[in-house]
Amino acid sequence: MTDNRKLVITNALIVTCDRDETVIEHGAMVVEGRDITWVGPGDALPAEHRVGAREWIDASERILMPGLINMHAHCGDSLFRGLVEDLPLEDWLQTVWKAEAAVLKDPADCRLGTMLGFAELLLGGVTTVMDMFWHADQSFDAAREIGIRLASGEIFFDPPGMDGFGPGDRPARAEALFDRYGDDDDLFVGTLPHGTYTVSPKGIHEALDLARARGGFLSTHAAETRAEQQTVRERYATGVIGHLSALGALSPRTVLAHCVHVDSQDIELLATSGTHVVHNPISNLKLGSGIAPLPEMLSHGVSLCLGTDGPISGNDMDMWLAMRLAATLHKGVNENATAIPAGEVLQMATINGARALAAEDRLGSITPGKRADFVLLDITGPHAAPIFDPINHLVFAAGRGDVRDVFVSGRQVVRDGRLVNVDLASLVAQVRGLQPRIRATLEADS
Amino acid sequence: MTDNRKLVITNALIVTCDRDETVIEHGAMVVEGRDITWVGPGDALPAEHRVGAREWIDASERILMPGLINMHAHCGDSLFRGLVEDLPLEDWLQTVWKAEAAVLKDPADCRLGTMLGFAELLLGGVTTVMDMFWHADQSFDAAREIGIRLASGEIFFDPPGMDGFGPGDRPARAEALFDRYGDDDDLFVGTLPHGTYTVSPKGIHEALDLARARGGFLSTHAAETRAEQQTVRERYATGVIGHLSALGALSPRTVLAHCVHVDSQDIELLATSGTHVVHNPISNLKLGSGIAPLPEMLSHGVSLCLGTDGPISGNDMDMWLAMRLAATLHKGVNENATAIPAGEVLQMATINGARALAAEDRLGSITPGKRADFVLLDITGPHAAPIFDPINHLVFAAGRGDVRDVFVSGRQVVRDGRLVNVDLASLVAQVRGLQPRIRATLEADS
Repeated sequence: MTDNRKLVITNALIVTCDRDETVIEHGAMVVEGRDITWVGPGDALPAEHRVGAREWIDASERILMPGLINMHAHCGDSLFRGLVEDLPLEDWLQTVWKAEAAVLKDPADCRLGTMLGFAELLLGGVTTVMDMFWHADQSFDAAREIGIRLASGEIFFDPPGMDGFGPGDRPARAEALFDRYGDDDDLFVGTLPHGTYTVSPKGIHEALDLARARGGFLSTHAAETRAEQQTVRERYATGVIGHLSALGALSPRTVLAHCVHVDSQDIELLATSGTHVVHNPISNLKLGSGIAPLPEMLSHGVSLCLGTDGPISGNDMDMWLAMRLAATLHKGVNENATAIPAGEVLQMATINGARALAAEDRLGSITPGKRADFVLLDITGPHAAPIFDPINHLVFAAGRGDVRDVFVSGRQVVRDGRLVNVDLASLVAQVRGLQPRIRATLEADS
Repeated sequence: MTDNRKLVITNALIVTCDRDETVIEHGAMVVEGRDITWVGPGDALPAEHRVGAREWIDASERILMPGLINMHAHCGDSLFRGLVEDLPLEDWLQTVWKAEAAVLKDPADCRLGTMLGFAELLLGGVTTVMDMFWHADQSFDAAREIGIRLASGEIFFDPPGMDGFGPGDRPARAEALFDRYGDDDDLFVGTLPHGTYTVSPKGIHEALDLARARGGFLSTHAAETRAEQQTVRERYATGVIGHLSALGALSPRTVLAHCVHVDSQDIELLATSGTHVVHNPISNLKLGSGIAPLPEMLSHGVSLCLGTDGPISGNDMDMWLAMRLAATLHKGVNENATAIPAGEVLQMATINGARALAAEDRLGSITPGKRADFVLLDITGPHAAPIFDPINHLVFAAGRGDVRDVFVSGRQVVRDGRLVNVDLASLVAQVRGLQPRIRATLEADS
């Protein structure tokens, strides 16, 4: 008798990414419906699971690991990938915003860019993304279609938004997102004030109150650049982190992207409040923002997770590159080869993201009882021989090209390197179709 | 009538990597025998080339670019990938050397590790590598078998080498390599003193005299770490670069790997002597060596090229990652988003490597008259849409997983992502077979 809800995987090298960093050679996993129900050595697989599964995957030559959790992205900006390069941050942002404002009023275009970003993430082994973009309803709908797990919400922003709405519209729009998507087990809804230099205390309070009332997260950009710190200091006589603390915005339900320019007092505030920090090394390097004090944050017990930022400060969203950088950048900058162990980085990219979403009971590791969000990674490549330690392999040598199969909530969304639910070629063709219009937004000005 | 020597490629987006950074949309290229004989827009392809080719490749959805030139590697260390992690440099090196000494006396094992490294490089779009490893005859033979263009030579080293030979053996062994491989158009022979802290002035002079006499290059590690600078200073009352200069070893036929710890006087010496510097950002970060002053070297006119270093300080040899880091690391460290333009980095990884090999007339760009060393890169991936500027795409978004076809001297060595001349699965199986013996070299000690 076949159980249509049951999937069994055998012969896998399982890197569980649980808090004990458990690795299982010749491992097996049973998925029933959306959940993992059994994990262990293959020869201990209970008899009841040896027959009758809907699907049986021989994962020889594969690492089985939890899907990566990218805690900071702007997927819709895929439309503008590579449009503006080699400019200092302020000029860069003004140019990007002008292009965005000219293109993004149409929700369908937002959806297109976001879908392309989701496609890239899934094909790269990311099963959950915290995304900040305009027309978040489009993002949630796109996430359901392609099958990625999405955390998002309404952006709060004092100037008129690229979506055509103003600050007065944000609370009601945010409420609508909670109403519409808040009960979906595959989605997380929160509020997303853009930053303390672009949102007044009133806006931050609105976003915070709403997140609390609805049990959602709050996420914002924080302390990304020196200029931002200076602006906030001039305005509020305290730095970004102190300002957020004074607003009551630091807590275990708060996720701060970047935290590059933080001092020891800031780090103490972040650690004691249980606030989560998303390290985005690719973006911080490329935009010249600086180097976040990751070793100091780690040693002070700050909850750290990992992100790619958007593909206009990237120019892609490669969590493998983010892991590699998180694990090596701080060794080089501090001339200390022991800074930031590989195991720590892998947790940042998996279970720590789950913790930051208040979902460590459901996500982030290959553990019975959790949702079946996982990746099968090819290890037949020349860079995968030998593997003395699979965790080091994942952090220092594996890459997006190794991702073969991806499952979210037990449903396969990438099969042998191809999307299951969306036609990538058509998506790429549509984005290329927009290219002349996007390029024209810059040329109109010059 | 078919010309068996002729290959025509059409519909390619050609990034020539010539000194003008020429890009040709809908481009065509004609290869006759080992050489490129025509490059231009497809609609200008001469009538004589429109018929009779042995092979006709439609390169729609592909970028055609020169093969990457990796100017510093230790391919044979693939055997030890990931064996020793999270140790400070000095302890790390001692442990690695112990493992090497226990394994590498057998030339066949050297050859196996080197072949695996070459496989990785070719599959990642590298057509020329400067490699420093024991038993270089094995490396040259392996290069001929798999089809990569190799620059290598005898390592000069004062202690007994991992190959079982001593400093007195080096000159004759070096001569033999020049005799045996020096006339091969696909190979470059030089001499490779390991470093100024491991080779006496006598050894450096021997290597230098031999390189000069035989028209070869000299390459060595230089100024990689603070400890190395201190050792050399204590021994010779001058730093590494000053010491090399005093020995007469700085010249356009000299290639120095690393140059992380160099001051403005060193940079001046490097620039005025025409010495080539290989930037190895992956290794410099992971081993905690530090950050090379790339912007300063660039602005002072030092000839810069790019390398990956070996897969034990990597843990792979990914030139795309090296490019990405060279282009972003210095922006972040200097908080200057305009440091090191992408076009400069692409030249470092292609035509500057050719220049460092005194072979810019033959290699490094898609130019008529040069050898047909080139790569066809897939641009159908989600990270490749849109492409506003192909040079930015190559440096900031492309990756090893995009490499589809690779040619060296007009011969195809990678076809649709697979090696033409060597069976990768068998190679990987052999390396895995050595794993227990390699691991045991460490356990014997503890």
